[in-house]
Amino acid sequence: MTTLIPIDQGRLWKRHMAMAQIGALPNGGVNRPALSQGDAQSRSLLARWAEELGFSVETDPIGNLFIHRPGTDETLPPVMAGSHLDTQPTGGKFDGAFGVLAAFEALQAIHEAGIATRHPIEVVSWTNEEGSRFQPGCSGSSAFTGAVPLEQHLEAVDRDGITARDALAAVLSTERGMPMRPLGFPVAAFLECHIEQGPKLEEAGVPVGIVTGIQGSRWFAIEVQGDEAHAGTTPRRNRRDALSAAISMVAALERLMFDEEDRVRFTVGRFEVSPGSPNTIPGRVFFTIDFRHPEASTLKRLGDQVDAVCRAHVGPCSVTITETFHSLPADFDANVIAAMRKAADLVGVRTLDLPSGALHDAKFLQEVCPSGMIFVPCEKGISHNEAENAKPEDLASGARVLAEALAILANS
Amino acid sequence: MTTLIPIDQGRLWKRHMAMAQIGALPNGGVNRPALSQGDAQSRSLLARWAEELGFSVETDPIGNLFIHRPGTDETLPPVMAGSHLDTQPTGGKFDGAFGVLAAFEALQAIHEAGIATRHPIEVVSWTNEEGSRFQPGCSGSSAFTGAVPLEQHLEAVDRDGITARDALAAVLSTERGMPMRPLGFPVAAFLECHIEQGPKLEEAGVPVGIVTGIQGSRWFAIEVQGDEAHAGTTPRRNRRDALSAAISMVAALERLMFDEEDRVRFTVGRFEVSPGSPNTIPGRVFFTIDFRHPEASTLKRLGDQVDAVCRAHVGPCSVTITETFHSLPADFDANVIAAMRKAADLVGVRTLDLPSGALHDAKFLQEVCPSGMIFVPCEKGISHNEAENAKPEDLASGARVLAEALAILANS
Repeated sequence: MTTLIPIDQGRLWKRHMAMAQIGALPNGGVNRPALSQGDAQSRSLLARWAEELGFSVETDPIGNLFIHRPGTDETLPPVMAGSHLDTQPTGGKFDGAFGVLAAFEALQAIHEAGIATRHPIEVVSWTNEEGSRFQPGCSGSSAFTGAVPLEQHLEAVDRDGITARDALAAVLSTERGMPMRPLGFPVAAFLECHIEQGPKLEEAGVPVGIVTGIQGSRWFAIEVQGDEAHAGTTPRRNRRDALSAAISMVAALERLMFDEEDRVRFTVGRFEVSPGSPNTIPGRVFFTIDFRHPEASTLKRLGDQVDAVCRAHVGPCSVTITETFHSLPADFDANVIAAMRKAADLVGVRTLDLPSGALHDAKFLQEVCPSGMIFVPCEKGISHNEAENAKPEDLASGARVLAEALAILANS
Repeated sequence: MTTLIPIDQGRLWKRHMAMAQIGALPNGGVNRPALSQGDAQSRSLLARWAEELGFSVETDPIGNLFIHRPGTDETLPPVMAGSHLDTQPTGGKFDGAFGVLAAFEALQAIHEAGIATRHPIEVVSWTNEEGSRFQPGCSGSSAFTGAVPLEQHLEAVDRDGITARDALAAVLSTERGMPMRPLGFPVAAFLECHIEQGPKLEEAGVPVGIVTGIQGSRWFAIEVQGDEAHAGTTPRRNRRDALSAAISMVAALERLMFDEEDRVRFTVGRFEVSPGSPNTIPGRVFFTIDFRHPEASTLKRLGDQVDAVCRAHVGPCSVTITETFHSLPADFDANVIAAMRKAADLVGVRTLDLPSGALHDAKFLQEVCPSGMIFVPCEKGISHNEAENAKPEDLASGARVLAEALAILANS
């Protein structure tokens, strides 16, 4: 019989609640924008916990935070686990934080059990995953892997005109003396725990999801240009009604994207109408498309039709279609998945294989090292919402699988 | 051969250009909100012109401005002509102003020609026709006729929290000594000149429109309630997508409102989506319907189906439908129309009969006295826009027909 790594469910839960105090909102949620004062406080709380256990803490030029536990062979690249501490403006207590705190709990449990590993193990908190203050998101992980240039992230500007460069400098100034690493270095493997943000695990009554990959995403920005005119006097034949054209486009796109098996994710989330007066025919509509699918072929086939479908429904207006984001589906590494399955067997929890609908930092890490993700159920699949909730026992199950998988990978 | 009332085209044009200086915008338009400082300046310019010619100027509790020329029988109610001096925020030089300035030109021409009339003739400038600063609009005419209580108009509040009561008091304080009439009094007939705000006269190459009536309007406010959720993770079967439901409603309403003869006016002008994030399924959509038709039966038949059509397309969301405005079609008075036709014959201009698509102060006056409207062409039918334009000769043609019709009615 194997002795399991002793994850402490109560300690893990207590740390979630402590972290959720920083930027706490009245309805139980958290507002902790990337590189804000709250973000700085959450970093320093994590760093304090790490230092109390004798771990070293370092940062890098995009502000990622690394907590290092040496391996028996320090020339080997680390096995790494983590996620992010920033939140949506009305976010929950678990999105991001769970991935960091589960990794820290795993590190502490491995350490306290006196388990030596060949590879070093590192906990990481990636900067600005959410992208709600500075666009694009996943700044820390995409700068680390080289997918997006560091300079591009640093030049991003928030609504108040503050650059990410200045906001980061302010955060780092509170951490004087913290060693600075260069950006990007070899990583043996990366693991990320996260709440599912969907209903599948809860519906199946299974505490742990083995994530097989991250579906692909294509984002489009559509601008429809018509002419403002008087609603009471202008006949239909003389109208260039931008709203009418946009409505027709979205209705046609919904028909294009309909699939019986319900795997396509198609969302029009922004839809802005100008001038927005009840008795003026709209002269301009701007809308966004968020389209995702786990298969590259479907992502290409349907996404490539967006342009033609919009143009077919433009009527007397004109339209500009811009693809603003294109991320291919990623399959997680087979060895990492095998390590997670073995870990789940050791721990004795049931698992479900599922793809990730959302984008995560692991999508970027997968490009440079074997990576994988562990999901746990969240209440009603709700996230990016103050009502976001998860059970202490599910969080602990996820951390147990993570700890065993880390130990397996760090000794392989 | 009859001597025509000597309308001065150059003087009429010059007054338009002088009035357009007050609140002038860089692109040729005018921003002169109701009861603003600009509105006060435009009133005092008009009053000064009137006093220079020896006419008396009076106001009333909602700030309507009356310029009086005595009749031979001062016990008879006046024949009245006018419109409004307030504008849309990016309005043009002619909407409203033409009706007041044509009436003033007609009054001056009648006066200078030494024509005596049995009825007094009055020029009126109604307060806040546009309704863009204080809602609802047509404050002056609807308070005058009793259609809307004075108190309701005075309690209206603008975006800065200023009440119409305070704004009106500020305007009236600049006119100390101007006599105050009680609200509402008998009127023998009312005539209103206006630019068409539509393309028909320009397309037909006809300088004067005889307006047969004002079409009916029904306004609706539709609120669709769904649930916010993650765009990447939430399957279609679990979504309550408020945008998807609203798109389906508007598409169905467009089918309902389609008419081959192109007489229905159906516009969705406001369409607001919350929270408006590209990767969040919209939880709420608010949109407005502006539906108009010249026939009461069609207004009722189609308008009464709005509720059922929206409910049929609500899907898994919920919807609240409120009718916010219901104005029956109005037919203008046969005697007034006959006087306008006779006047056009005298002047020798071609006319076209047409209904008014827009609402005007004459809609309210028609409820209490015989009323009518004269349209002149405007460039490309454009109004409520800085590009609004009209030709000096068309404005003068309208003023000629108005002057003759006023003389006919004031002597009948």
